Amino acid sequence: MDTAEFRRRGKEMVDYVADYLENIEKRQVYPDVEPGYLRSLIPEEAPEQPETYEDVVKDIERVVMPGITHWHSPYFFAYFPTANSFPAILADMLSGAIGCVGFSWGTASEATLVALLAARCRMVKRILSDDPERPEADIISKLVAYSSDQAHSSVERAGLIGGVRMRKIPSDSKFSVRGEALRKVLEEDKAAGLIPFYFCATLGTTPSCAFDYITEIGPICNTEGIWMHIDAAYAGSAFICPEFRPLLDGVEFADSFNFNPHKWLLVNFDCSTMWVKNRTDIIAAFKMDPLYLKHDHQESGIHTLHTHTHTHTHSICHWQIPLGRRFRSLKIWFVFRMYGLRGLQDHIRKHVALAKEFEALVRVDERFQISAEVVLGLVCFRLKGSNDLNEALLKRINSARRIHLVPCQLSGRFVLRFAVCARTTESRHVQEAWAHITQLATELLRQFPQ
Amino acid sequence: MDTAEFRRRGKEMVDYVADYLENIEKRQVYPDVEPGYLRSLIPEEAPEQPETYEDVVKDIERVVMPGITHWHSPYFFAYFPTANSFPAILADMLSGAIGCVGFSWGTASEATLVALLAARCRMVKRILSDDPERPEADIISKLVAYSSDQAHSSVERAGLIGGVRMRKIPSDSKFSVRGEALRKVLEEDKAAGLIPFYFCATLGTTPSCAFDYITEIGPICNTEGIWMHIDAAYAGSAFICPEFRPLLDGVEFADSFNFNPHKWLLVNFDCSTMWVKNRTDIIAAFKMDPLYLKHDHQESGIHTLHTHTHTHTHSICHWQIPLGRRFRSLKIWFVFRMYGLRGLQDHIRKHVALAKEFEALVRVDERFQISAEVVLGLVCFRLKGSNDLNEALLKRINSARRIHLVPCQLSGRFVLRFAVCARTTESRHVQEAWAHITQLATELLRQFPQ
Repeated sequence: MDTAEFRRRGKEMVDYVADYLENIEKRQVYPDVEPGYLRSLIPEEAPEQPETYEDVVKDIERVVMPGITHWHSPYFFAYFPTANSFPAILADMLSGAIGCVGFSWGTASEATLVALLAARCRMVKRILSDDPERPEADIISKLVAYSSDQAHSSVERAGLIGGVRMRKIPSDSKFSVRGEALRKVLEEDKAAGLIPFYFCATLGTTPSCAFDYITEIGPICNTEGIWMHIDAAYAGSAFICPEFRPLLDGVEFADSFNFNPHKWLLVNFDCSTMWVKNRTDIIAAFKMDPLYLKHDHQESGIHTLHTHTHTHTHSICHWQIPLGRRFRSLKIWFVFRMYGLRGLQDHIRKHVALAKEFEALVRVDERFQISAEVVLGLVCFRLKGSNDLNEALLKRINSARRIHLVPCQLSGRFVLRFAVCARTTESRHVQEAWAHITQLATELLRQFPQ
Repeated sequence: MDTAEFRRRGKEMVDYVADYLENIEKRQVYPDVEPGYLRSLIPEEAPEQPETYEDVVKDIERVVMPGITHWHSPYFFAYFPTANSFPAILADMLSGAIGCVGFSWGTASEATLVALLAARCRMVKRILSDDPERPEADIISKLVAYSSDQAHSSVERAGLIGGVRMRKIPSDSKFSVRGEALRKVLEEDKAAGLIPFYFCATLGTTPSCAFDYITEIGPICNTEGIWMHIDAAYAGSAFICPEFRPLLDGVEFADSFNFNPHKWLLVNFDCSTMWVKNRTDIIAAFKMDPLYLKHDHQESGIHTLHTHTHTHTHSICHWQIPLGRRFRSLKIWFVFRMYGLRGLQDHIRKHVALAKEFEALVRVDERFQISAEVVLGLVCFRLKGSNDLNEALLKRINSARRIHLVPCQLSGRFVLRFAVCARTTESRHVQEAWAHITQLATELLRQFPQ
């Protein structure tokens, strides 16, 4: 869909929304459908080729509306109000267009925490079943969770919130955790009387897009009864391309897995998906059942479309910290149908190719070096020279305001991260960015010869 | 703004969005403004009277855009991508219009948890400063948090997540907690060697919209060093009307306060606001500082508009569980300006009047009784008779699909909750609903005479 079509479709959607709200009281306030009604109405898989917008729109009334509870019907008197007004809808349209992130990395953090809490609950129960007299506080004080020294800060925060010890496993020269490194730390900790219970593996770390060796780590975790959570917040989207699927080898050992379609799969922020191997582990950690949340289909294992996007369904309000979420699955559904698998793969491949193009530019300039293997859409690079020099370069780049980069630290070195981000980035933007960076570098090196 | 105007404005907004995205690369990718730039551009307070939409729209370029980092500019290479596509924007428009809640009561739950974690951290530090040798696990195992027996299930869940003991304080005949009831439990628990550290007071409980006596509870909490959090998820919106402000007396004793504009203040789901008395307590519980999150204005105490809606600003990514959020403050801003304080007050007062109208209808029908004082927009009522009878009535009401209600339990009794919810609910809908309910009751009582 190009901008011209968006102008047309957007205006049609405005009319649809206006019609819907103008006539809402003619709709039955509460749906008649049974859980699972969607299954026969939609295909098993996302379409290979893009569908037309007309086809998608036709299905709003056919597929979506029969499952909707009309919270804004004047005949809805349940729970408490949930707000709705025209200005807020207009603002949300704009907010969606700007699509900026309040601050970065959204709800992969929450998935990391939810998995850690489930793992904590599972381990406490396991130990209590062998030793029912042992005080729970004593068990929790001995628990220890692990992640790579390259893992996102939200992993450390999850440990802090869960009130458990957290230890970082040293990564190798490629910034990945190997099984051997984990095993060494586990032996030390068990000898000291600690109880290992959780490992957060990262596929595509934030600093350099490194991949932990889950084929080595997974079997160790399974043997030791350690919950392995995989955080693939960024890289997860790439697995829709067969050529990147080998990066996912070992996923079969995981207890939970998370990635963010709102990062790299064309679904506007925020939209994060979490998969859990054994849902009872999650439910045990969160379950509460007040009367005002009781509903007829609680135990059926299937939820209607107005809930949100987790692979397992069931009563999802027991699976997370807030009870409610926005209707995010709708965004995924539109995007999958309008792009098709091919369109989404094209998007991923184009970004990876642009990163490779940038990498090639860096490699032919002898003043620069590449700091980590370029696997997907991220290039880590720096000027050969001191950290101060690179910090000065970054400062000039960001002060000039033509492009925007952030740094990272790899093995004590200050490194610049060039991440291909926008849907509309083309080769010419990459070429221009590199010309701009090298010009600033030339000026810098003229003023401060190395 | 009526539907006709929404049709016009929505189409203008579609064009604005299309123009913005079509020309985004002409905009400077990263803003020049200093933190605080907004302060001189916007009034100190929300407008008393509605403003025109033209005035709001003019300010998008004047006020908002200068503070925006354009995440979808092809010159943006920082962090990782955040997704954006036209189908997702269209879906979000529809999602906003449907405005259903994935499941209920949104992020007040998160505020309750965040406050509990901050309180836990504050109490552990306080005890360690007196007794540095005491093991942290021992302190945590003695901590005890409190709430009313009427409090929302998310309070209990917060205790479960935080790994602390949770105790419910018995409410009085009006379903409110009095100071005396809290004091009694505190004495027992302290005598047993426990450490009280957190009380979650509710203003407007979920079952019956009851108000805890915070003028009595607050001073006790302050004296004992107990963190008092106020959950006013629903009722909070009513405090924009002076006549409801006395319900807020005692708020000065609170350490934190939460309410949901997405419930009753015409801001589409989701949008929840939290106020904290001393921000260092929150920061201490969450702070992490990786290099890729460092930015120039970290310590300045002011954030630009692309962050979200908490009363205190600072580096808000340290204040919560996820790092990122959607651009929700935009919705509040549009709504406050387009309705003005008067318009919002009218909305609240209309809902309360409709609840009183329904209450009066119930009171003149001798077969029914009112089960709790009607303070705001919620009426708790039941047929005089058994719980089974009332359960049967509710079942008939919800099976008929014309209106939708949920039940609650008050003092062991099965009670029906009639909450005025939709913006468009009018007297005729309330009258119709009551006629419908009484007809079903008549049929039921004919079949099963009491």
